[in-house]
Amino acid sequence: MIIIGEKINATLTGIKSIVQKQDSAGLLDLAKIQAAAAGFIDVNVGTGVGSREDEIVSMQWAVKTIQEGIETPLCIDSADPAVLEAGLRVRSGRPSLINSTKAEEKNLAQVMPLADRYQTPIVGLAMDETGIPKTVEDRLRACENIASACEKYGVPIENVYFDPLVLPVSTDINQGLVTLYTIAEIKKRFPAARTVMGLSNVSYGLPGRPGLNAAFLHMAIYAGLDAAIMDPLNQTLMNAVKAAEVLVGKDRHCRRYTRAFRGS
Amino acid sequence: MIIIGEKINATLTGIKSIVQKQDSAGLLDLAKIQAAAAGFIDVNVGTGVGSREDEIVSMQWAVKTIQEGIETPLCIDSADPAVLEAGLRVRSGRPSLINSTKAEEKNLAQVMPLADRYQTPIVGLAMDETGIPKTVEDRLRACENIASACEKYGVPIENVYFDPLVLPVSTDINQGLVTLYTIAEIKKRFPAARTVMGLSNVSYGLPGRPGLNAAFLHMAIYAGLDAAIMDPLNQTLMNAVKAAEVLVGKDRHCRRYTRAFRGS
Repeated sequence: MIIIGEKINATLTGIKSIVQKQDSAGLLDLAKIQAAAAGFIDVNVGTGVGSREDEIVSMQWAVKTIQEGIETPLCIDSADPAVLEAGLRVRSGRPSLINSTKAEEKNLAQVMPLADRYQTPIVGLAMDETGIPKTVEDRLRACENIASACEKYGVPIENVYFDPLVLPVSTDINQGLVTLYTIAEIKKRFPAARTVMGLSNVSYGLPGRPGLNAAFLHMAIYAGLDAAIMDPLNQTLMNAVKAAEVLVGKDRHCRRYTRAFRGS
Repeated sequence: MIIIGEKINATLTGIKSIVQKQDSAGLLDLAKIQAAAAGFIDVNVGTGVGSREDEIVSMQWAVKTIQEGIETPLCIDSADPAVLEAGLRVRSGRPSLINSTKAEEKNLAQVMPLADRYQTPIVGLAMDETGIPKTVEDRLRACENIASACEKYGVPIENVYFDPLVLPVSTDINQGLVTLYTIAEIKKRFPAARTVMGLSNVSYGLPGRPGLNAAFLHMAIYAGLDAAIMDPLNQTLMNAVKAAEVLVGKDRHCRRYTRAFRGS
């Protein structure tokens, strides 16, 4: 299981001011505390208030700051392809992940060439210009469109992390299964591709969210989830990953599980 | 999700002496504390030391004692068909479950006619005279044999609860998936049948067993588990059931989940 640490996200309280003040020590701390448990550290510096130019400058600063301090791969995260490219350029070939493209022609035309040019894997969201589809079929159609774009732009399907997307079960009780079935179908149709998602949306509006998110993670890992965008400091979720890996046979001799258990 | 309360089992410390002394008040207490959360209460009075005649007498006493106090359906549990029949006779048509038959000719020939005669559902274990198969295929073959016996003895497949069986992942890391895939395949091949299992064997030999059992329950419910033989007083497991049902769309408007959460 690949953990993508989600804590560097400038829409979160506390992080926004770190980005706005270019607080390099604060930023690097956030990266370092995640590095032990995360395979990638997500870097999202969109504060929602600045210009595109601001976000480009912030991304360049953030990537440079983090990669001078630690070697963990970075997940360059922005809705703006120009910001993605600015981050990838600073990475100059260091291991990265592009987060993300939708299954939308214009978006694909801007982002897929980056995946090709920088030979970097990319997160493909199972949604298009009409938003997040409500059904498994329509999410898979979005994934098919991303797979077609892969051929067109010369991106190997092994370099795609499909994100099935997650909607709250509190507003539509079927949405848990829609996401889980989408994961299982993606793994069948594109066995060489990977799957990734953020969890927490599933429990929006309900009590006991950490436990509900952990339960969803157990199910998703059984369904075929390869990577999760989550807080690597959240022990409930990290333990959920370890338990799930033992149960689906991905932890030989139960070593990671028993080690984690002794450590906690 | 159907919960089968497992606490009346004479191989457990404390329960054995209740059975041996025919402590009716003690037995009824054990039934009553489970009744609020359980759809069935399992009744296993095999102490492992008495004769067949002892077990028959104990079963008659136990069933009579419990059904005089509460109306919860009972799961008549014994490896001995004569004990099963003794329990069913005392039930005289009250809702019951026969636990269990193996996919073994002799066992089927003795137990299946009980399921027919007493018009009572039956637990069918995915194992035969050679023991518990290590592979999904071999467990399914055992289930196919049980399904054939259903036709032979006139038992409708809707009356079968297939138990995929659970072996510890600590001795074979693939066994979690073997059980889960067996559940999913049973639901595909016999959509009218139900699935049932005990959980706790999966975590044998590992630390943190309650959490691991809960994680396995989450996955199993997503895979298609309909019933679990478990401790209905174990809040970790009962909460796991509620969370899983919300996530697989079996709790409309999340009512049972939110109610359980408010209550705890």
